[in-house]
Amino acid sequence: MNNLQENERLDDLGRKGYKIIQNTKIFCFGIDAVLLAAFARMGKEDSAIDLGTGNGIIPMLMEARYGGSHFYGLEIQDINVEMARRSVIMNGLEEKVEIVQGDIKEASKLLGAGKYDVVTSNPPYMNENHGLTNPDSHKAIARHEILCSLDDVVREASRLLKVNGHFYMIHRPHRLVEILAKLTEYKLEPKRIRFVHPFVDKEANMLLIDAIKGARSMVKLEPPLVVYKEQGIYTQELWDIHYKED
Amino acid sequence: MNNLQENERLDDLGRKGYKIIQNTKIFCFGIDAVLLAAFARMGKEDSAIDLGTGNGIIPMLMEARYGGSHFYGLEIQDINVEMARRSVIMNGLEEKVEIVQGDIKEASKLLGAGKYDVVTSNPPYMNENHGLTNPDSHKAIARHEILCSLDDVVREASRLLKVNGHFYMIHRPHRLVEILAKLTEYKLEPKRIRFVHPFVDKEANMLLIDAIKGARSMVKLEPPLVVYKEQGIYTQELWDIHYKED
Repeated sequence: MNNLQENERLDDLGRKGYKIIQNTKIFCFGIDAVLLAAFARMGKEDSAIDLGTGNGIIPMLMEARYGGSHFYGLEIQDINVEMARRSVIMNGLEEKVEIVQGDIKEASKLLGAGKYDVVTSNPPYMNENHGLTNPDSHKAIARHEILCSLDDVVREASRLLKVNGHFYMIHRPHRLVEILAKLTEYKLEPKRIRFVHPFVDKEANMLLIDAIKGARSMVKLEPPLVVYKEQGIYTQELWDIHYKED
Repeated sequence: MNNLQENERLDDLGRKGYKIIQNTKIFCFGIDAVLLAAFARMGKEDSAIDLGTGNGIIPMLMEARYGGSHFYGLEIQDINVEMARRSVIMNGLEEKVEIVQGDIKEASKLLGAGKYDVVTSNPPYMNENHGLTNPDSHKAIARHEILCSLDDVVREASRLLKVNGHFYMIHRPHRLVEILAKLTEYKLEPKRIRFVHPFVDKEANMLLIDAIKGARSMVKLEPPLVVYKEQGIYTQELWDIHYKED
């Protein structure tokens, strides 16, 4: 069962006994994926697509939290697709979570437009690619807008969603202005925003956003999500997000 | 000296012994003005304009905090203009703070375009005017977009400012998307945003924004500003903002 390959390790997802295979040379999931899955909402009958799913952590965390009817994880890189599929099998989710290989830019062509209740994404968030020593590396592709831009992610999310469907994204606050403009451009109306601060007295370093296709304009700014209460010690909320069963 | 009229009261600004005349039937300054003056920055030689200055609190708080070369407070309502002028005289600021009567929509025509280092505004923030029982009331004019819209305020701020000048505004978070779009439209690039939360675990109810004319795109999300640590008890930061001399 434990068929790990070179540079791989097995991590516990903290819910329903699920595990995930990660390759330490590529990209291990961070707090981003955990926060996004906790911030998102979905009904037991809803379908969801994760754009740029990597090792498939977000669909698996979402399934563990919310149930849901069917999940697609779209991923372009061979090595991730293969690894995500092994994790799906390991967790017995073959009937419910499908890892699809393909390009985010073509997502709505590949998976069908206007059909989904929820789209999630933890996309590459750096738009400065100049000076990258190795733009073909797996890590660079996950972090920098090399294979897809913010425009691609938002446009495809909008196309995939039903009217009133939700797009949940985690991104970086320094790009807030551009993010809101893009969402508006593609008729995804921002409804809830939550900023993540490493400490309560520090600048935000992540933002969580919930945008509804075709909704009217009116956004809520949720309480700050604070990660650490002191150096190395999580806040109670972070513990609850990680481990508390809903 | 204490020439108060009917419904007026005299309040202490907590800095340099300044006082302000307020009319309890019109609009007394709230925490908004205090937070905006503390969030703003200006050099000792800078000039500033406050759009919709009401009783003149923001120019007087800014002068007390930052020095500055000259301040204009633009206000349309007779009763406020007259009251603000009496406060200016009471604080001996006749040479430094000028209350100008006029319409925000005409601000750059009245005061000159491209000449100022700083523009501040605590504009009317409600865009739902339907159902107002008395849209001519002084209070309604201060709170609802009856005489000027967000577009008017942002457009005139941009026209008044020098390149690299700062526009500081306090507004409501539910209009964040529209605020950022308007600022971008008028070449005022959002550079710092701070959300104000009544309690650390509550939604934000105010936002402070610093936008620079002609700057490049990149915004910082500052730590949350939390007003109360428990019901009726200010946080240390709020006490410092009110009373701590810089």
